[in-house]
Amino acid sequence: MRSRMLSACLVALVAVPSVRAQDPLPSWNDGAAKKAITEFVSKATKTGGPEFVEPRERIAVFDNDGTLWSEQPIYVQFAFAMDRVKALAPQHPEWKEKEPFKSVIAGDPKGLAATGEKGVLEVIVATHAGQTTEEFAKTVQDWIASAKNPITGKLYTEMVYQPMLELLAYLRANGFETFIVSGGGVEFMRPWTERVYGIPPEQVIGSRGKLKYELRDGKPVLLKLPEADLVDDGPGKPVGIQQGIGRRPVMAFGNSDGDLAMLQWTTSGAGPRFALLVHHTDGEREVAYDRQSSIGKLDKAWDEALAKGWTVVSTKDDWKTIFPPAK
Amino acid sequence: MRSRMLSACLVALVAVPSVRAQDPLPSWNDGAAKKAITEFVSKATKTGGPEFVEPRERIAVFDNDGTLWSEQPIYVQFAFAMDRVKALAPQHPEWKEKEPFKSVIAGDPKGLAATGEKGVLEVIVATHAGQTTEEFAKTVQDWIASAKNPITGKLYTEMVYQPMLELLAYLRANGFETFIVSGGGVEFMRPWTERVYGIPPEQVIGSRGKLKYELRDGKPVLLKLPEADLVDDGPGKPVGIQQGIGRRPVMAFGNSDGDLAMLQWTTSGAGPRFALLVHHTDGEREVAYDRQSSIGKLDKAWDEALAKGWTVVSTKDDWKTIFPPAK
Repeated sequence: MRSRMLSACLVALVAVPSVRAQDPLPSWNDGAAKKAITEFVSKATKTGGPEFVEPRERIAVFDNDGTLWSEQPIYVQFAFAMDRVKALAPQHPEWKEKEPFKSVIAGDPKGLAATGEKGVLEVIVATHAGQTTEEFAKTVQDWIASAKNPITGKLYTEMVYQPMLELLAYLRANGFETFIVSGGGVEFMRPWTERVYGIPPEQVIGSRGKLKYELRDGKPVLLKLPEADLVDDGPGKPVGIQQGIGRRPVMAFGNSDGDLAMLQWTTSGAGPRFALLVHHTDGEREVAYDRQSSIGKLDKAWDEALAKGWTVVSTKDDWKTIFPPAK
Repeated sequence: MRSRMLSACLVALVAVPSVRAQDPLPSWNDGAAKKAITEFVSKATKTGGPEFVEPRERIAVFDNDGTLWSEQPIYVQFAFAMDRVKALAPQHPEWKEKEPFKSVIAGDPKGLAATGEKGVLEVIVATHAGQTTEEFAKTVQDWIASAKNPITGKLYTEMVYQPMLELLAYLRANGFETFIVSGGGVEFMRPWTERVYGIPPEQVIGSRGKLKYELRDGKPVLLKLPEADLVDDGPGKPVGIQQGIGRRPVMAFGNSDGDLAMLQWTTSGAGPRFALLVHHTDGEREVAYDRQSSIGKLDKAWDEALAKGWTVVSTKDDWKTIFPPAK
């Protein structure tokens, strides 16, 4: 938030000519998607114009998995959960013989898949509850500092989308607050979103478990309980937005059917509204998937985008680069 | 948030000499409480100093009832609920014979009190659920525009504490984000906190009910359900802070035992921490109450404040004025 403040100060007071002269979205090809974004922002920030948006109403919400970073071949948080099962296995000798842990430890994705949704949930609960919030944040930080995508061998945090990083910065420079609204766990995202996206913890909304406040030897802790409090996906996204922000966003960005309700909620408010879907069309530079994918399925939301004229980005055609340059 | 940004820009670039020359807390008597506040803020903002607090960590949390506005003779939200029972009574002829509604409609506080906590909860549910979030916000806005304290005849929004308004502005001018963390309902507070306190909806945390996303004639709405989601009081306050902010605050302000866990949580983090309790000692200009009060009881938190050296404000001795001057 302070970096947004600082950049807004700089834009307002120092850098307007050079910012205007430069392309704020250099990784976007000139095309309909880029044009739709920049035209919307120009109008929203034009004081006195018919589509001006009051600064305090400039709320932009972003899905995370598949919108800001890659969700293939599996959700990053699930890779984390499976690594945690392996790390915790020595403390749970019974897991060797007990599904779904047995399959995770044996590196048998088919065995795990056979345990179904119930098995997956068991893995999440076993690896996400029982720690304090501070212990869990440390566990996430340690893991994400070195965990790599199994296909590309890159750090997961290197597999964020460069065009979307530019878009976040561009919106913030124009007075928008950028929130993450993700089906992923809020306690899993907050330890790294500020460093990676420039989005501080208080602007991250996600799925959450119940917490319990207690004193341990006189020291207060918040214990993560094995009980869901909000599943921030599908119809849960507008709920998460209302609970965590309390204003209806004016811009929403997603990539799958899990984002449909968020895009509906955003675009059905009064005044100028903007909705965008990232359609993963690039099988060479990333992964191409949509209607048939088990992860990040884009089907109903795509139909609704076409019917309602929402912006649909083709990663193959609209993005010059997918990932940031190697450091 | 934008007004904070603007004021921070101005402070940084234009107004430093005059701001320093003026007293930012003119309604506070010079004394231990005022000194503790200003010394903490001076050190927290002194770059390179041993008690410097990074701008992004400058989170200050405020209870609302009894800390930012008056909670006597009854919580404002409960006055709202009782007025709503009366307004809705024609649509519920059965209420005339049914407690707790019968007592509310008859203006019989003793009869209502006899229904106990269960009766009070019934009144809250009947008046707070069943509407969409937008309908409810409109109901609150209409009510608070004219509802008055039964003792003073002033608008409730005129019974905010002038010294605390100055404190909020002072902290924001020093780069703090000011959050409300209240046992009151989040949907009850957000419609007016920006106008009254300069605190935008996204910085209001409170008790909340469950919400349901649905399409009504194709139009998305969020329906308020008659089921509690978070009771943001006592040990629920650190939970609300973690869910809604995700950082531990460095400053916390309250007035009752319901704030104790929030003050414990805030002060037990590493680095400089500040906790303050408002002790209502002024029976002439407001109401004097503490250990024996059924509303805003200050007992255990007071003992802990004394034991731990937290700042305790005496409204009689530390505040030059209680309420803002009449407009």
